[in-house]
Amino acid sequence: MRKVAVLGIGQTKISEHWDMSLRDLAAKAIHSALQDAVRSRVDGLFVGNMLSGSLNHQGNLASLIAEWSGLNPAEAVKYETACSSGGSAFRAGLIALASGELNSVLVVGVEKMSDAKMTDTAAALAAAADADYETAHGLSFVALNALIMRRYMHEYGWNHADFAPFSITAHHNAVHNNHARLQTSISEADYSQARMVAEPINLLDASPIGDGAAAVLLVPAESAAGTRNTPQVNVIASAAATDRIAIHDRNDPLWLTAAEISVKKAYSQAGVGPQDIDFFELHDAFSIMSALSLEASGFAERGTGPRLGLEGEINPTGRIPISTFGGLKARGHPVGATGIYQIVELTQQLRGEAGENQVDPARIGMAQNIGGSGATVVTHILANQ
Amino acid sequence: MRKVAVLGIGQTKISEHWDMSLRDLAAKAIHSALQDAVRSRVDGLFVGNMLSGSLNHQGNLASLIAEWSGLNPAEAVKYETACSSGGSAFRAGLIALASGELNSVLVVGVEKMSDAKMTDTAAALAAAADADYETAHGLSFVALNALIMRRYMHEYGWNHADFAPFSITAHHNAVHNNHARLQTSISEADYSQARMVAEPINLLDASPIGDGAAAVLLVPAESAAGTRNTPQVNVIASAAATDRIAIHDRNDPLWLTAAEISVKKAYSQAGVGPQDIDFFELHDAFSIMSALSLEASGFAERGTGPRLGLEGEINPTGRIPISTFGGLKARGHPVGATGIYQIVELTQQLRGEAGENQVDPARIGMAQNIGGSGATVVTHILANQ
Repeated sequence: MRKVAVLGIGQTKISEHWDMSLRDLAAKAIHSALQDAVRSRVDGLFVGNMLSGSLNHQGNLASLIAEWSGLNPAEAVKYETACSSGGSAFRAGLIALASGELNSVLVVGVEKMSDAKMTDTAAALAAAADADYETAHGLSFVALNALIMRRYMHEYGWNHADFAPFSITAHHNAVHNNHARLQTSISEADYSQARMVAEPINLLDASPIGDGAAAVLLVPAESAAGTRNTPQVNVIASAAATDRIAIHDRNDPLWLTAAEISVKKAYSQAGVGPQDIDFFELHDAFSIMSALSLEASGFAERGTGPRLGLEGEINPTGRIPISTFGGLKARGHPVGATGIYQIVELTQQLRGEAGENQVDPARIGMAQNIGGSGATVVTHILANQ
Repeated sequence: MRKVAVLGIGQTKISEHWDMSLRDLAAKAIHSALQDAVRSRVDGLFVGNMLSGSLNHQGNLASLIAEWSGLNPAEAVKYETACSSGGSAFRAGLIALASGELNSVLVVGVEKMSDAKMTDTAAALAAAADADYETAHGLSFVALNALIMRRYMHEYGWNHADFAPFSITAHHNAVHNNHARLQTSISEADYSQARMVAEPINLLDASPIGDGAAAVLLVPAESAAGTRNTPQVNVIASAAATDRIAIHDRNDPLWLTAAEISVKKAYSQAGVGPQDIDFFELHDAFSIMSALSLEASGFAERGTGPRLGLEGEINPTGRIPISTFGGLKARGHPVGATGIYQIVELTQQLRGEAGENQVDPARIGMAQNIGGSGATVVTHILANQ
């Protein structure tokens, strides 16, 4: 595939933005990305968003954002694969550049979740599950993850406390991230005493939703040479795969098959293996997902994911730092935007512009965005040059 | 762009399918397309759908359809640009093939609209407008089109009866289309006496919604040679453009700027002009849209669209036959699926398999899919070889 560079990045703080609408958030991130790239040409706008139709009563969101950001008549499309919508939009942008049809692509992930009633938001998020065979039985999305976590603990003998490092590390990393929703560190006691949501998932196992937008400007790598932002950050692998949506339909509900497939493809494209990945922005919507993602991506044997946390290997100075800006857990999870926040953070690390959050070395980073409880998995590997 | 062939086509009848779910409809069209293509390899599934999140409570629809159709672990993404979602998904499929990343792509458009209350459906469709600046004022989608039609009649001096040929022709063409929702011809008296919906749009100016799915299997043109379906049908142009969503924000609400831009690009890619187009599947969601589309696409001067109808030029034997299988007006308009129905019908004509609906000659056909009242327009030109 034609080599692509991330030329510009932009993001808003994740918060309850009562004074900003869906289009305002997107436009703010877009303008930051264009400013960062010192470019204005945009051939196509790729929008990652899950909930605009159900929560914001807004269809054709991509055209609306194109209008609001002054990008008409550029073509514009919204991509939706539940919580991996951002990753899917990013991959579509790469493919469009590779086709030669477009030469400058803006990808924005955006979600505005605060305006709706909590019950409506929970119902809208449950749409990431199988509406007819899971949601119809009253299962919320956190309840589905709780089923997976409970079974995982039963099969492999882990206790709830063993998952604490995932949340503690994420919160620790978010303290210096001004774009994070929760800039607060937490202790083991905080974790163990947190309010139960859906047993065994408590409030500190779950990521907070929020309003936010993140954007990247992508161009063919050869046309990025000599630009302001150095070192240049290139995408060296992109892959996506699907699995059955309903947990009960999967061959093994404790294994992220789609993650394994997309990661293997990505490693093969980049000519690397897990040992070459310097840091990993994974999809820690729930702490159980961190464990499963680390296993499916080759960083831990089956059933041993929590050990990486307990042994400090996921810390900024460990073998495989994760959630380096707070992850979904503490940076926040504006669902359709999350995949682009991950790419923005990868770029900050690879440029050496991560400040207090900088990991070292930061030559090759991986991002993984998960839709549903593992139905869609999109994996990207970026590197500096 | 790498030349792409439409190798297989499939469609369901558009109707109220009380015995079929969203996934059932999609799977049926997909299997028809694969059977027609005599192929089974699918590298990626591209889904055009507008309303699954708001009406069917189903996110991540593409993964769900991949599962239900036996296509896991192929990557799968849903594309949404309101009523042009099908056209956007088709264009994304072409781009993916052009990139070389995928070599066999299935595009399915699907919508299931009958399960919801009519008021919920109307509200969900209104999401195609600007939620904050149009819908919030109580305007339904038909009301917005009524504003355009009234202004058009005022500016150019047309009467309501002058639009009759658009609806009469569409219904006439649907009589022999077994997949059409309304297989009935209508008279001028029927048209003039139809129940008013939003003045001046009456029931026979408006297209009926419905449940339905249409699918196409796309492959690089060179790998389609020698296959069963002849003549081979190739895509010779693909272009999309956007305009402001809200009618009051447009420079000229009586001109489809995005249509003009996308059509000019498409003509240029294909090396053709309006005089070379043998037939045109346009987006006749409302009769006023037929007039505006014909004008923006170069078949009529500004303000003169209805004349083509009055002079019989849009009939199957006229200069530019439109809606050759009934169009949105009579075949039906399952919103996110419509763009793929158009491609399926183009392919039927270009293969010479249109039966009673066959136009002659049918060497080059154009399809135009419109999102909102003109905010997104996707134009495709196909040809046989």
